[in-house]
Amino acid sequence: MPVANDNELDQLEETAAQVRVSYAEVDRMGVAYYGNYLRWFELGRAEYLRARGKTYKEVEAEGHMLPVVEAYSRYRLPAEYDDLLEVFARPTAIGGARMTFSYRVVRPADGALLAEGYTVHCCTGPGGKPRRFPAELLALLRATPLA
Amino acid sequence: MPVANDNELDQLEETAAQVRVSYAEVDRMGVAYYGNYLRWFELGRAEYLRARGKTYKEVEAEGHMLPVVEAYSRYRLPAEYDDLLEVFARPTAIGGARMTFSYRVVRPADGALLAEGYTVHCCTGPGGKPRRFPAELLALLRATPLA
Amino acid sequence: MPVANDNELDQLEETAAQVRVSYAEVDRMGVAYYGNYLRWFELGRAEYLRARGKTYKEVEAEGHMLPVVEAYSRYRLPAEYDDLLEVFARPTAIGGARMTFSYRVVRPADGALLAEGYTVHCCTGPGGKPRRFPAELLALLRATPLA
Amino acid sequence: MPVANDNELDQLEETAAQVRVSYAEVDRMGVAYYGNYLRWFELGRAEYLRARGKTYKEVEAEGHMLPVVEAYSRYRLPAEYDDLLEVFARPTAIGGARMTFSYRVVRPADGALLAEGYTVHCCTGPGGKPRRFPAELLALLRATPLA
Repeated sequence: MPVANDNELDQLEETAAQVRVSYAEVDRMGVAYYGNYLRWFELGRAEYLRARGKTYKEVEAEGHMLPVVEAYSRYRLPAEYDDLLEVFARPTAIGGARMTFSYRVVRPADGALLAEGYTVHCCTGPGGKPRRFPAELLALLRATPLA
Repeated sequence: MPVANDNELDQLEETAAQVRVSYAEVDRMGVAYYGNYLRWFELGRAEYLRARGKTYKEVEAEGHMLPVVEAYSRYRLPAEYDDLLEVFARPTAIGGARMTFSYRVVRPADGALLAEGYTVHCCTGPGGKPRRFPAELLALLRATPLA
Repeated sequence: MPVANDNELDQLEETAAQVRVSYAEVDRMGVAYYGNYLRWFELGRAEYLRARGKTYKEVEAEGHMLPVVEAYSRYRLPAEYDDLLEVFARPTAIGGARMTFSYRVVRPADGALLAEGYTVHCCTGPGGKPRRFPAELLALLRATPLA
Repeated sequence: MPVANDNELDQLEETAAQVRVSYAEVDRMGVAYYGNYLRWFELGRAEYLRARGKTYKEVEAEGHMLPVVEAYSRYRLPAEYDDLLEVFARPTAIGGARMTFSYRVVRPADGALLAEGYTVHCCTGPGGKPRRFPAELLALLRATPLA
């Protein structure tokens, strides 16, 4: 398990990705299907890195993959078709071999918190072999967003 | 939270859905994207009900919806393109207002356990108003599969 | 088949939706899976309507559905993970019972045209019964975008 | 464009893939979203190859990719949640640099033809460079299914 949150992590600024709920993502209850949130979480953590100056695509190009080993989502209120959502992401735990991102999915139109969740990641090389998180990535995660 | 498992639930027989991993579901690491497992879980619980004589579609037609309020997945080994998987599902906790289904995603070709997880459901009417699980549904969940 | 394009339609201004290619949408060739483009087309036509003052959600709320009866896509260059795309949409044919939207998927970073396509729609009431396109919708489609 | 169908191709036996329509795939009209059919087409052509003794995964492992350059679908009747579908696929045109697969999506419960379509493929090496279809693949496509 990742180590407990430290004070420094608590102060990391969230970054938001914007998501428009498409017809494809809504089910016959008229609300967004629960599996889509994991993709939206991914968009949130991608924006977290991008805002700090390096994309996840660039992280992978340097030979580091961050596969998901656990994912959790709690659904509080349904997202409807055509809703514009914000997916807030930030790291909340970084241990030797595990890292946790936490998420909030919010609908700015009414301020509703629709869902919360987290993903736990390990770090591997291109061949899938586990490794420690590179120091440069850890520094990136703790950086403040670029202006 | 759902009530603790009771002995009766522990003895419920799993039912499996078969899933073929499509090209659409595999990402550029060459393995199934983590969000797809939640859809596979759905296929597993659908087969659980079908095997006991009533489909989830019929449950909904009778006015009972079982929206997901929590979902969790732990990824142990990656599923690859074209893998044939079995998604085993069964109820593992049934409380007054919450019900938990648990899942195992297995690759029969090598017996590997790829992922485990659960979903927590409440029960609502068509308009989204929470209600208790109907007795008939609870009996269905505890039934033995039809021959 | 829809009637041939008229001069008026040729002059309709396209509207673009922005799409960020997610990890979920990329396959093991490292490029966006071909099925995703149909969802991106949907996002494009939604923005076309929104830019003219009414959302497709509002059109449906007024009792008019526009189901897809044909879809075509031609893939010219692959979209890669994390690409930011623009999906340009506009109506290109409107007949009595059929309407065609045409699309171009462009990558602004290099100006590449990645894909082109169209969807053909009919109009139905909530129960699926075909009807003519309402005059108000036809006027909306031919309107100039709001400032 | 692919060359015209030849008599030999007309006699190729279709192979079917089975698909269960999941909740994830159904939209708020209560019917399968139009983009899903392209994934179902993919499952159909995968089964076509498998039935003749080689999987598409094996074709790729030998260094031949068959990316989609065009896709078309015509939607005749909607597929509903939990429908069990059969996706029939077979090659209908094979030219020097292009190959066409055609599809029919049928619901065995009532025999309804829900959709028809085609995909056009080229052949490339792992790096994306176009090449001619290898003779072994062409022979496979024209083979009769294994018992």
